Amino acid sequence: MAVRLTRRVDFPMVDMAGIAFYPRIYDLAHRFFEEFWEEACGIDYPTVLSKHRIGFPVVDIKSTFHAPLRYGDTVNAVIWISAIGNKSCTWQYRFNNQNGELLWSSEQVTACVSMDSMESMTIPDLLRTGLEACGNE
Amino acid sequence: MAVRLTRRVDFPMVDMAGIAFYPRIYDLAHRFFEEFWEEACGIDYPTVLSKHRIGFPVVDIKSTFHAPLRYGDTVNAVIWISAIGNKSCTWQYRFNNQNGELLWSSEQVTACVSMDSMESMTIPDLLRTGLEACGNE
Amino acid sequence: MAVRLTRRVDFPMVDMAGIAFYPRIYDLAHRFFEEFWEEACGIDYPTVLSKHRIGFPVVDIKSTFHAPLRYGDTVNAVIWISAIGNKSCTWQYRFNNQNGELLWSSEQVTACVSMDSMESMTIPDLLRTGLEACGNE
Amino acid sequence: MAVRLTRRVDFPMVDMAGIAFYPRIYDLAHRFFEEFWEEACGIDYPTVLSKHRIGFPVVDIKSTFHAPLRYGDTVNAVIWISAIGNKSCTWQYRFNNQNGELLWSSEQVTACVSMDSMESMTIPDLLRTGLEACGNE
Repeated sequence: MAVRLTRRVDFPMVDMAGIAFYPRIYDLAHRFFEEFWEEACGIDYPTVLSKHRIGFPVVDIKSTFHAPLRYGDTVNAVIWISAIGNKSCTWQYRFNNQNGELLWSSEQVTACVSMDSMESMTIPDLLRTGLEACGNE
Repeated sequence: MAVRLTRRVDFPMVDMAGIAFYPRIYDLAHRFFEEFWEEACGIDYPTVLSKHRIGFPVVDIKSTFHAPLRYGDTVNAVIWISAIGNKSCTWQYRFNNQNGELLWSSEQVTACVSMDSMESMTIPDLLRTGLEACGNE
Repeated sequence: MAVRLTRRVDFPMVDMAGIAFYPRIYDLAHRFFEEFWEEACGIDYPTVLSKHRIGFPVVDIKSTFHAPLRYGDTVNAVIWISAIGNKSCTWQYRFNNQNGELLWSSEQVTACVSMDSMESMTIPDLLRTGLEACGNE
Repeated sequence: MAVRLTRRVDFPMVDMAGIAFYPRIYDLAHRFFEEFWEEACGIDYPTVLSKHRIGFPVVDIKSTFHAPLRYGDTVNAVIWISAIGNKSCTWQYRFNNQNGELLWSSEQVTACVSMDSMESMTIPDLLRTGLEACGNE
């Protein structure tokens, strides 16, 4: 089952045209990504990074910008794992606004790496079980 | 002919792991995109936006993160227009570091819009000529 | 009475040393500032800016950085208006972490301006009443 | 003698009102701060941080926002060290635009810390000599 999270479009995200500056949509996606871990795996991302010393850097991203995120909009995010391999997994993001309009969709492949060596590693069962349970929209 | 530009990886780009936080690679790409206009079209982007009232929002992006951008690295960017249609064009970005290592590649489709109506519009000749001249790597 | 708000230190705030990069503490303060309006005045800041066409740009800031904001920390913010004049007001921010440790204190003077002319203007009663009610820590 | 540096106001710095969002003025100041080291001490800041393991976190800032930084403006920064103690120093920043108009002034006290222990330490002669030579506007 997908994880569903909500944040507002804050002023710092917005550009001269009154819409989210596109790199900050990725920044927003990362803030949702961080919240995802507690929902999906019962462990917060600071703990994953700092205690378990595991990180998930992106290696490939495809995104479509369907409609602008306007200042004051509410972003309803749906996040799920569409594929999980030995050492990487594929994330799906869908952002809708408060009117149900699709704003942004993104597919992101992340490696699983040791934060000490930055070498790729097998996704441990500690996290894999939770990720696998988020396999569907 | 492609446009070639250079910037350093500044401290604000870098995350806990000492490498560029990926949304800020897009932010860096946008700073290069801004500089591109003067090189390619002889007109700076603030003038394009504010005087000519024309903007180029992204509608689709594909990116591959080949290797990390480290603090203190020099990023050598190569930017060209791989396709130009009536109301949109396709940008290619290649970022290499000071050792010639490929760090990031990205293909970005931007619409051409009126900054007043935010409606799509034909790319005017004022800009088209310069964009067409940047058609090759 | 002061307004009390809470946010986590997200990954994008954090630098190479694992603590909040200081310009992003101001960014965080602004996100709290935005939330303040609904709590204090019953009107959200996007509406203040876009419908009432009133803004509150900072003109003077004094800040002390008592202790680092670490990744994963919870920031408990206390915000109040220590002085209110005709066309400006003075904000007080205190950030504590989840252990009650004082992290950051800041005094910020904002002008009240028309978003159309960017000229200073009298703080309207619509907002003044709510601001005056937040006069104490 | 002060260090003089120049950067443009890039699009990512600018808010809905077309002027620099104030936390990003501090971000800009930090980018100048980074460039300062090579000019003043003949050693770049990545080397100071990563090789010498010394950092200069801010502990106190006072700033006045005299006039807005507009998109496309050139910022001419003047930076000098108005006081240098054993374990801390005081920085002065003045930002003017291309017309010589004063935009922003800031006084910032930074500690000198070991990047390993994050404990304060004496500013080493390696850096002190260069900092002392920047004692006047």
